[in-house]
Amino acid sequence: MHICILTFDQFNELDSMIALGILNRVKKPDWKVSIACPTQTVTSMNGLTIERQATLEDANKADAVLIGSGMKTRQIVEDETIMSQIQLDPTRQLLGAQCSGTLMLAKLGLLNDIPACTDLTTAPWVEEAGIKVLNQAFYVDGNIATSGGCLASSYLAAWAIARLESLKEAESAIHYVAPVGEKDAYVEQAMKNILLDTRLQK
Amino acid sequence: MHICILTFDQFNELDSMIALGILNRVKKPDWKVSIACPTQTVTSMNGLTIERQATLEDANKADAVLIGSGMKTRQIVEDETIMSQIQLDPTRQLLGAQCSGTLMLAKLGLLNDIPACTDLTTAPWVEEAGIKVLNQAFYVDGNIATSGGCLASSYLAAWAIARLESLKEAESAIHYVAPVGEKDAYVEQAMKNILLDTRLQK
Repeated sequence: MHICILTFDQFNELDSMIALGILNRVKKPDWKVSIACPTQTVTSMNGLTIERQATLEDANKADAVLIGSGMKTRQIVEDETIMSQIQLDPTRQLLGAQCSGTLMLAKLGLLNDIPACTDLTTAPWVEEAGIKVLNQAFYVDGNIATSGGCLASSYLAAWAIARLESLKEAESAIHYVAPVGEKDAYVEQAMKNILLDTRLQK
Repeated sequence: MHICILTFDQFNELDSMIALGILNRVKKPDWKVSIACPTQTVTSMNGLTIERQATLEDANKADAVLIGSGMKTRQIVEDETIMSQIQLDPTRQLLGAQCSGTLMLAKLGLLNDIPACTDLTTAPWVEEAGIKVLNQAFYVDGNIATSGGCLASSYLAAWAIARLESLKEAESAIHYVAPVGEKDAYVEQAMKNILLDTRLQK
């Protein structure tokens, strides 16, 4: 099972790294999580340079892809050299987008009539792309989920674990990362969100 | 104002990166936040390599230092070549530690009789170092704060903003990163934690 987190120049550290940390809570030999980037290194919105763990081509072949967010998404979605390299397919992949990642999902033509979550700054651009923006943290339709607000990336990661592994594994991952003394409340809130996915409801 | 986040090999991405993202929500010309490492690059517990933004020497001179967490902290605190380079001083610096970072704070002799927060895995090692571990997310005594559970790094970062800038700036930073539709609850919970600091109480 390979999960890629698309991460571009000027990326938001919380969005990509919270997902990376939580997804890696699953300790199974065939479970692999990678930060996937168009170039060998990318630099965050706060000047932190990281080395990619996978290419965009790897992401196209992955079982699941989460699109991270960043300050440059509006320019990147207009960059044909990058956009033409991204070939995602919800019929064979689980897809998620975080904050401005939702704009990329929209521009890739993958949202169609699906409403979506994003952050407050990106909302007007997603609406301009013809997508209805929801005033909530998380939404899922079939194999496509979107979330809004950096810390909602924990919901997106937990959802991917729930769909690819189990609700129990997702719960355990959130329990691990939640603040001491507040773990039950965090798990409850995360589960409330990801159980919006009808496929995860009993 | 320079704030360093100490980050070592095998670091936990959430602990260092959530702090980096939230602290950088303060947009002031003299406000600088850096990931500080002993070497030019460090690699996370999940194989992500990052380039440092500052040295340990820079951290010694910083106005505030947050110690991140990782899988290798127990070995690092026994490594004299690294530990001898870290000279922190709560009389002139605001100090915070996240999860296993608390073990480093203890080994640096900075906790003395101060009880502390850490994660459930590190707790026995902190207790072995003679420090009482609290079953809560955040605790502060004077200029030293500790937090436990990866996502509690948002409280540590917000606390540093509140102490160095204002409660209002801290609230605004948490509001920005909180999930859409859940922002008020997240702000309330963060404020409840950082207001354990008597210096921030009216």
